[in-house]
Amino acid sequence: MRIEKDSIGELEIPQDAAYGIHTVRSVQNFFQSGEKINPYLIKAYFQVKLAAAQTNYKCGLLFKEKFDAIEEAIISLIRESDEAILGKSDSIYNKIIVDPYQGGAGTSLNMNVNEVIANEALKILGKNYGDYKIISPLDDVNLGQSTNDTFPTAVKVASIYLIRELAESFASLQNSLQKKEVEFKNILKLGRTQMQDAVPITLGQEFGAYAQAIARDRWRLYNAEERLRSVNLGGTAVGTSVAANKEYVLNVNNILKKITNLPIAKSEDLIDATQNLDVFVEVHGIVKAGASSINKICNDLRFLSSGPNGGIGEINLPSKQAGSSIMPGKVNPVILENTIQICELIKGHDVIITNAVANGNLELNPFLPLISHLFLKSIHLLKKSNYNLTKNCIDGITANLEKCKSHLISSSAIAASLIPTYGYETIQEIVKYAHQNKISFVSALMKTKLITEKELLNLISKEMGVDSE
Amino acid sequence: MRIEKDSIGELEIPQDAAYGIHTVRSVQNFFQSGEKINPYLIKAYFQVKLAAAQTNYKCGLLFKEKFDAIEEAIISLIRESDEAILGKSDSIYNKIIVDPYQGGAGTSLNMNVNEVIANEALKILGKNYGDYKIISPLDDVNLGQSTNDTFPTAVKVASIYLIRELAESFASLQNSLQKKEVEFKNILKLGRTQMQDAVPITLGQEFGAYAQAIARDRWRLYNAEERLRSVNLGGTAVGTSVAANKEYVLNVNNILKKITNLPIAKSEDLIDATQNLDVFVEVHGIVKAGASSINKICNDLRFLSSGPNGGIGEINLPSKQAGSSIMPGKVNPVILENTIQICELIKGHDVIITNAVANGNLELNPFLPLISHLFLKSIHLLKKSNYNLTKNCIDGITANLEKCKSHLISSSAIAASLIPTYGYETIQEIVKYAHQNKISFVSALMKTKLITEKELLNLISKEMGVDSE
Amino acid sequence: MRIEKDSIGELEIPQDAAYGIHTVRSVQNFFQSGEKINPYLIKAYFQVKLAAAQTNYKCGLLFKEKFDAIEEAIISLIRESDEAILGKSDSIYNKIIVDPYQGGAGTSLNMNVNEVIANEALKILGKNYGDYKIISPLDDVNLGQSTNDTFPTAVKVASIYLIRELAESFASLQNSLQKKEVEFKNILKLGRTQMQDAVPITLGQEFGAYAQAIARDRWRLYNAEERLRSVNLGGTAVGTSVAANKEYVLNVNNILKKITNLPIAKSEDLIDATQNLDVFVEVHGIVKAGASSINKICNDLRFLSSGPNGGIGEINLPSKQAGSSIMPGKVNPVILENTIQICELIKGHDVIITNAVANGNLELNPFLPLISHLFLKSIHLLKKSNYNLTKNCIDGITANLEKCKSHLISSSAIAASLIPTYGYETIQEIVKYAHQNKISFVSALMKTKLITEKELLNLISKEMGVDSE
Amino acid sequence: MRIEKDSIGELEIPQDAAYGIHTVRSVQNFFQSGEKINPYLIKAYFQVKLAAAQTNYKCGLLFKEKFDAIEEAIISLIRESDEAILGKSDSIYNKIIVDPYQGGAGTSLNMNVNEVIANEALKILGKNYGDYKIISPLDDVNLGQSTNDTFPTAVKVASIYLIRELAESFASLQNSLQKKEVEFKNILKLGRTQMQDAVPITLGQEFGAYAQAIARDRWRLYNAEERLRSVNLGGTAVGTSVAANKEYVLNVNNILKKITNLPIAKSEDLIDATQNLDVFVEVHGIVKAGASSINKICNDLRFLSSGPNGGIGEINLPSKQAGSSIMPGKVNPVILENTIQICELIKGHDVIITNAVANGNLELNPFLPLISHLFLKSIHLLKKSNYNLTKNCIDGITANLEKCKSHLISSSAIAASLIPTYGYETIQEIVKYAHQNKISFVSALMKTKLITEKELLNLISKEMGVDSE
Repeated sequence: MRIEKDSIGELEIPQDAAYGIHTVRSVQNFFQSGEKINPYLIKAYFQVKLAAAQTNYKCGLLFKEKFDAIEEAIISLIRESDEAILGKSDSIYNKIIVDPYQGGAGTSLNMNVNEVIANEALKILGKNYGDYKIISPLDDVNLGQSTNDTFPTAVKVASIYLIRELAESFASLQNSLQKKEVEFKNILKLGRTQMQDAVPITLGQEFGAYAQAIARDRWRLYNAEERLRSVNLGGTAVGTSVAANKEYVLNVNNILKKITNLPIAKSEDLIDATQNLDVFVEVHGIVKAGASSINKICNDLRFLSSGPNGGIGEINLPSKQAGSSIMPGKVNPVILENTIQICELIKGHDVIITNAVANGNLELNPFLPLISHLFLKSIHLLKKSNYNLTKNCIDGITANLEKCKSHLISSSAIAASLIPTYGYETIQEIVKYAHQNKISFVSALMKTKLITEKELLNLISKEMGVDSE
Repeated sequence: MRIEKDSIGELEIPQDAAYGIHTVRSVQNFFQSGEKINPYLIKAYFQVKLAAAQTNYKCGLLFKEKFDAIEEAIISLIRESDEAILGKSDSIYNKIIVDPYQGGAGTSLNMNVNEVIANEALKILGKNYGDYKIISPLDDVNLGQSTNDTFPTAVKVASIYLIRELAESFASLQNSLQKKEVEFKNILKLGRTQMQDAVPITLGQEFGAYAQAIARDRWRLYNAEERLRSVNLGGTAVGTSVAANKEYVLNVNNILKKITNLPIAKSEDLIDATQNLDVFVEVHGIVKAGASSINKICNDLRFLSSGPNGGIGEINLPSKQAGSSIMPGKVNPVILENTIQICELIKGHDVIITNAVANGNLELNPFLPLISHLFLKSIHLLKKSNYNLTKNCIDGITANLEKCKSHLISSSAIAASLIPTYGYETIQEIVKYAHQNKISFVSALMKTKLITEKELLNLISKEMGVDSE
Repeated sequence: MRIEKDSIGELEIPQDAAYGIHTVRSVQNFFQSGEKINPYLIKAYFQVKLAAAQTNYKCGLLFKEKFDAIEEAIISLIRESDEAILGKSDSIYNKIIVDPYQGGAGTSLNMNVNEVIANEALKILGKNYGDYKIISPLDDVNLGQSTNDTFPTAVKVASIYLIRELAESFASLQNSLQKKEVEFKNILKLGRTQMQDAVPITLGQEFGAYAQAIARDRWRLYNAEERLRSVNLGGTAVGTSVAANKEYVLNVNNILKKITNLPIAKSEDLIDATQNLDVFVEVHGIVKAGASSINKICNDLRFLSSGPNGGIGEINLPSKQAGSSIMPGKVNPVILENTIQICELIKGHDVIITNAVANGNLELNPFLPLISHLFLKSIHLLKKSNYNLTKNCIDGITANLEKCKSHLISSSAIAASLIPTYGYETIQEIVKYAHQNKISFVSALMKTKLITEKELLNLISKEMGVDSE
Repeated sequence: MRIEKDSIGELEIPQDAAYGIHTVRSVQNFFQSGEKINPYLIKAYFQVKLAAAQTNYKCGLLFKEKFDAIEEAIISLIRESDEAILGKSDSIYNKIIVDPYQGGAGTSLNMNVNEVIANEALKILGKNYGDYKIISPLDDVNLGQSTNDTFPTAVKVASIYLIRELAESFASLQNSLQKKEVEFKNILKLGRTQMQDAVPITLGQEFGAYAQAIARDRWRLYNAEERLRSVNLGGTAVGTSVAANKEYVLNVNNILKKITNLPIAKSEDLIDATQNLDVFVEVHGIVKAGASSINKICNDLRFLSSGPNGGIGEINLPSKQAGSSIMPGKVNPVILENTIQICELIKGHDVIITNAVANGNLELNPFLPLISHLFLKSIHLLKKSNYNLTKNCIDGITANLEKCKSHLISSSAIAASLIPTYGYETIQEIVKYAHQNKISFVSALMKTKLITEKELLNLISKEMGVDSE
């Protein structure tokens, strides 16, 4: 054990802990929720710290020896964060131990990061953890910074990384849907509105419409990056850059831009950028729009694959696991159900994020820990869910030609195609006649001698632009 | 025009307006949303004012002549509110003109009510509107009261009236569902889990389960009244009864109880009751639970009535209107869709009410106008919706016996019934065999010679407790 | 009374009713909610019908006499809708009587519009209401159309009109805030983070940050128009243009573009555009982001104007109405409270709209009536609220110089400015010393002789870029 | 590695894995979210399995040797779950590895539980993992059960355990607030409505009102247990008890009651209880009502503790950690901020749970995994949060007597007390005079000679029932 102290008093810290007293206070103050800080956020925070250190060094505010050690430490910690992102190692969570649900507007995470960097730098210098007289988490690592500018900046960096990955996952989903669009392009089937038999459509058109919706999401996400690139680094506590060197303020964002290789830019109004988090409402709104489209698609697919015998059964989902512990042979739309639940989660996150953003106070929003945690979580889960949906479900969907055809033929769906030729009233009479005599519309139509079956089929095929088989 | 003045200055009021300057200020301050104060709330507010006037009179705080005029005015205004409730006349909205979306924690509504009572009482005395020296909206009508105790009290009185009516509408819905339960009790059909063929069930059992859920809602609403009966009348501004006569405080709730004929009781902690509106979160949560159950039922009925030819079609909904401007003969589940939209609305109101309650400040929640408006609106709309759903949809549902039977027979639904006799593995093999050979489970089962068709049918009928036809 | 009939049967219609049987069915099926169809939507729907009629005429599908009457009728109805928009006359609501909360995916509204146009055209021709053999609501007015393409198109047209007006209201609010930014630019005050004394800021900077957030909303809304301009007119029932003339489909959107003078464009995938309503989630998300920013600003202003004596009191709100029926002279932040409630409402609408969009089914979303009603309502209310907030609140805000100064001087806010010069630890010691000895930080600082008061004041003024007074 | 097979095919399972093929399929199908199944749910599921095994044994459906092994295995697994609940060991998560966000209505969790029990029982018998011919996860462990009855039952058992603990945490919070009520009972202060100076109140009364709100939550939670005790165990797939022994169905719930020592009862309508999850909407609504009250209290405390010098500062929060990395000595309301974020989370969960419940389909709600996960998470987090709030914040709050007094004296708060004596108009004049002459109300009042200062103070103290100091 070593002893560290802060303005409140002293505390024992495990000898080999890379974190320090502020981190331990945080752990004591905020119960463990069981969740962890998003690894992209950890990485991004280290990148922000690297940008600050490099800028401070260039401005002559950090001695070379100190800077070298700090830089080396941070680079190593970024590598360790990458391991967590890739799912290779969770070791970074032995160092970054604060809970994502924390009070203090993120001060705990900033302190945790500062302390870990200072201690790792000390180790590089051959010193002991806790020798803050040599390298101080605050006076050195946090030099010219505040939680209030570094934390939002790190969140935006992490967000851009994740938004790009999310856009990729939408691209993958779109691609899978488009393959089905092509595969199913000549499969005529019953189109339904309000769950009632409506007019003919092709299965390919249905998947094409899905693909189009997903394409729109992808495009929105692509544009969302633009909103996230403006950061308040250099603004310190409230955006007035109090306690920060002017030259540092001028340069730190450019250096962060190089480090992250992202189009980071300094906000034109640092005060605004410090207190207003509306961009997270805006961008999460886009993520949520994506979730809504996916939700709709999944509901459709559950409906279309219902059965296998007593349902609609126009498509077959790939069988992924035994569907029941009691009903043998049952195969359920489990991937769709999983996806829908993720979509519902994201819709709920949207409510939380909006509330938390709207409830910010004056120069700062103290709820950024919650906002950023759920924002990144939504993106992360939806990304994973999209790949899962693509691979474990959409890719393997097959058409049930027989059901597609039988539903179309038995319905009045083709009636509307005939309105231009015969008028609404006439067709309505035939529909009514069919209904009253409990025969299909096609049978009733044939009785009128208005059109032969062959003419009818040609008409539909031609109208739908479908190759007859 | 007459001139009235308040602490801000003077204003011209139309000569024949029963309201006064505070009301006009409110109209100038809060734009018209197009919605109106709930008529039950108006009535209840007048009842509260009547209770206050009667108590003040009994405590010797109001002269008889004044009191008589005020009482007569209020009684007439209550009658006018009843006309609005019954949809007979909207004349009360020429007097109560403030918008439901108002700032000021309801002061505008209270002032509007005070001014209208004072002026109507003046008229009874043969005086002019605006002669507040004779009867003052504040010193006389509002005597011993505050917006902060009269408004929440009026909201609770209105809530109890409406909650009782809502419970009645659930009773009506439950009754309709139970009739269908009986009507459909011998109709064997396919039960579905996760939209996939599962095991046999009867159509009566399905409607019975719906009725049970609705019965639970009814019971919850019945109990909810208990939560709403505790009021803070007499607490005045913050619950300390400042500016109110002690005897008045002791008696006013009992008098309100008599006037309303509701089990009103004075809260044990008036300060708590003035600032905390959690009861509206609690009770609206119950209303929302009801909406959720109805939403689920409506989705089921849309699914079961899908078709008529290319869908599930196990039930028929009554035909209520032409379903399409373009597709002749189409009949849509319009009542279900209407109901679902009301349910979604109520779920959204729940979010708003919860936020507004959670954002109260110190001794008062300034957002009660919003909370009460949406709270009463939810109840009112759900009540109307329930009756509509009952009469225009549930009552007219018929079963499609043929489809019920064919879906059951063609599926593997009966497989599970055989597990106790033959074991999961065996049955799974038959299911698999049927699937591979594209024959129904029943056909495959017959091939095994394990059981004859007759034995099988007896088994199911017996298990399901259904009279064979 | 006249008799009309549809596929369900006959019904009596009031002789002078411009609407017909389908409208009356709707009124019988969907209880009256007390709300009305947004007048912009009514206008837009007539514009869509005009585009359809003109296109049909050009394609030779309507005889000139019929077309002339229909066109004249629609133009007159558009004028009548404009009266409703301008608040001059509500007469259009004697014709368009269906409820906004309706099942049937909007068929009722479409039918109501069709019937009113047909009857008004009949009147122009000197015929009786109901002579549908001469002009048919379906075969003539609705020719080549479906609810499923005309309704979404009308909603988008109405949305663009309203979004533009909403953007204007944000511009107005931004302008007001920027005036205050200039007016207050030299007023030094205490900046607060987490509601605790932090560092100096100017009152002008605070209002500047608000203006910046609002400017962002304005910009977002400006861009949102782009998303709304793609429509599915010509797609008819499910986007396959069934029952529509090819030439009509090619031209109708261009004609609508001219009629509305809006950048309307035909969607590239009409099937997608018919079934997917994600654009409303996206754009309402932007509206909601605006509401969140306004909500935050209003909370700040309530905090800063709290008092007048026992609160923060750094700003004064204009006095708009007597604040209390019991506490004399009390002035409350009523406009802010009103605004906040509108913001909460919009946040709730967002939940409802998202759910309703996500719950669409297959070729159509049956919940567009709810979605469009709340979408337009949010925009309409926020627009009105913005103007109200600007005029009745922001414009009249004044600064309380004394309080601004006294809070700044009595706090440790200036401590952070000194960290670069003296280091975190040293300053922390002075803060601690001040706290322990219950003296202000400035007093403690003076004791250290590190800096004179004059030097200190110069330092802050210089750092803040403020003209000393 | 060992090989297991299911209806889909074969899979390699790690030799020492207690789980089997269905579990591995689930892990492949549902990506890892990073969250875990709630340990109370795991324990409860084992308890349900124990009840089933004991009942099956008593009904003669399981041989003694098998039963003994199964029972011993389960008892050991319950113990291991208890270790996870107590935070002592996470070893159970080497066995129960399925993700909480899973499709399949919980089948994966049920299968995981079944497989682990079977394998542990096999080990007890000296057999190899995977020897399912000897003890089968399905035919033996799952005998007479379905996911659809065991999973909801387990969720309810877990819920009751956790709801009781949550109620305890509310009791603890209430107790802490009541201590402050007593401690602060003679501290007169300014009461505020709409954040404006209103009338006198005591600090004790404020904490008393908080305690009252919390007491109401506690009472509600106490009653909520009643709603959760009715379970559908024995109903199997859809509530018709298909594939279950009649005697088993009659007895299994009583045996579960004994095992859990909870007032478990068999639902009167098993079909209803299988498909309708409204009880989770209802009870989570109560949890959310609690969160709303706590949210409100925390906002108040942030306001009252704002400062220390430039804010309200009427109370002091305990100092828990350094408040800023840049502003020395700053102490922030970090516990309150943490608590508020948990409350926002719970409000969001409510939206998700309601949606998921409302979207159930027919005989089953496939979204129970999401519903139960968030339901239990809300309860768990609020419980932890309550204890944290109590211990780390409320217990340590002290009053700032000076500020309480100075705010009261400098305000017009006492004006309302004088209305009964002098009338609203008179007092309003004095208030106006004070405002115009920029003196305090008390000073203006003294000038009128209506009352002496001594008489005034006596009046307030007497009215407030406060001992003068």
